[in-house]
Amino acid sequence: MGKLLIIGSVNIDSIETPFGKAEKIVGGSAPFIALAASQFDVESAIVSVVGEDFPQEFLSLLQDRNVDISALEIIEGGKTFFWKGKYHNDLNSRDTLVTELNVLADFNPVVPDNFKDAEVVMLGNLHPNIQMSVIDQMTERPKLIILDTMNFWMDNSLEELKAVIKRIDVLTINDEEARQLTNEYSLVKAAQEIQKMGPKYVVIKKGEHGALLFHEENVFFAPALPLEEVFDPTGAGDTFAGGFSGYLAATGNISFENLKKAVIHGSNLASFSVERFGTERMQELERSEVHKRLHQFKALTQFDIELQ
Amino acid sequence: MGKLLIIGSVNIDSIETPFGKAEKIVGGSAPFIALAASQFDVESAIVSVVGEDFPQEFLSLLQDRNVDISALEIIEGGKTFFWKGKYHNDLNSRDTLVTELNVLADFNPVVPDNFKDAEVVMLGNLHPNIQMSVIDQMTERPKLIILDTMNFWMDNSLEELKAVIKRIDVLTINDEEARQLTNEYSLVKAAQEIQKMGPKYVVIKKGEHGALLFHEENVFFAPALPLEEVFDPTGAGDTFAGGFSGYLAATGNISFENLKKAVIHGSNLASFSVERFGTERMQELERSEVHKRLHQFKALTQFDIELQ
Repeated sequence: MGKLLIIGSVNIDSIETPFGKAEKIVGGSAPFIALAASQFDVESAIVSVVGEDFPQEFLSLLQDRNVDISALEIIEGGKTFFWKGKYHNDLNSRDTLVTELNVLADFNPVVPDNFKDAEVVMLGNLHPNIQMSVIDQMTERPKLIILDTMNFWMDNSLEELKAVIKRIDVLTINDEEARQLTNEYSLVKAAQEIQKMGPKYVVIKKGEHGALLFHEENVFFAPALPLEEVFDPTGAGDTFAGGFSGYLAATGNISFENLKKAVIHGSNLASFSVERFGTERMQELERSEVHKRLHQFKALTQFDIELQ
Repeated sequence: MGKLLIIGSVNIDSIETPFGKAEKIVGGSAPFIALAASQFDVESAIVSVVGEDFPQEFLSLLQDRNVDISALEIIEGGKTFFWKGKYHNDLNSRDTLVTELNVLADFNPVVPDNFKDAEVVMLGNLHPNIQMSVIDQMTERPKLIILDTMNFWMDNSLEELKAVIKRIDVLTINDEEARQLTNEYSLVKAAQEIQKMGPKYVVIKKGEHGALLFHEENVFFAPALPLEEVFDPTGAGDTFAGGFSGYLAATGNISFENLKKAVIHGSNLASFSVERFGTERMQELERSEVHKRLHQFKALTQFDIELQ
């Protein structure tokens, strides 16, 4: 059983989609990553921070899922990071209505001693300086450091972001962000440019259009499962990252062939995440459901053409 | 060797993309379909119309590719259908600058006797009444009737379009058009609605995001090959349709398994079509290049997860 160290925000979210509203539910990159990774036999820990207002039941749930929360600081008298957003009708874009950093503003991550030798580090979306500090605290170079980020950090902390990107193995990023980071419209070219910045592997997430994995001359594509309804896309990318990193930590194999499987597992789990508000679906997700949907993934993409 | 009957427009196009301009080159759905289908061992014929201005060399090229052009009428003193368009920077949208129907305005299709028993009929994008007239002229119900259409006919001839859709086996349509035709945003639901209108199979083309094949509860997805450069997307959908229908006519097998392969062949050929202006790339395309790229397609999508 490999060790997976998870860094990310832990939020309280209020979300509005065309299908309804959810007030003050748990969100943030770390919970989605941890819940997705818990689908694999992995020992994981979250490094993050919340306020006194954060629901105890959710912390218990994480512990039940074998997630070490000893490095998830609870600030007495503090308030948890709060985000409020509203999705447009096509669910492909959203407006941020409120962002209150609260306890996240002064967050100083401390990696627990028993995870300083984690094989896989999943740096979820956060300030690049926090991501960097976590890398610096590792006593052994992890087998694989994966970083997820977003356009906000490109707009506001580009140099810090580039410095941490230089030290990682896999960057996961969405298509528009890959274009913004590289000034290349073609995703093939963007992935080439990103590989020059440091990471050997690049995963470009295209939401409902799937995800691409690039490594040198190799490209692999995993579609998103075509769904009748997408209810709430919040956390889909983080769930992908959790499935991807969780599978790799559980198997301890970082070959390109195994990264391909990790992309499929990440896409598979993300297809569940969007079915309900926030982390709701991921909280109750059974491994038997996950396996069943993997069959659908296989049927969706596998074909048998005789090659010459 | 199966027979493939191709109906579609034959144009003169002037195209501007961010990469350059091409004046008065051959375009239209039928040439792209025929060139793509000629990559397979198939006997094909085009039913269409051109004016006296149409280049004789292109007609000779089609004949060299084993395309029967005896039902491609040449109207003395007439002018070929002319289209002029300009693509936006992202190549995903375009403005039509000029449309001159010319000889297409009074076109009355006549299916040649030796193709009235064609196994596969590919009804390329044209007025639905012309598509309907071709079906009426078949002496035997073809094994497979495939229809491609576009939003223009939904806006202007919806009832006629619905009448012909009722009589076909496969509808190929792009994502926005599928949504427009059914008022369903979810492509899964749109495909279900379209199956209720008549066709047993629905192919939804998503351009650079690939294509989905639907049949009852089954879904199959073929990605578009990630390309460094897309030069001119004109005709990509028609090339897809030509590869799809050509492969099915050549193999004579209309099982879902074989339709999956047809979708891969269509996507593969479309990836070449966009590399140059108009039909340029398809005119010189060698079967060895096609086979080589099929290997890339397989590498792009095939994975090996042990299912439980």
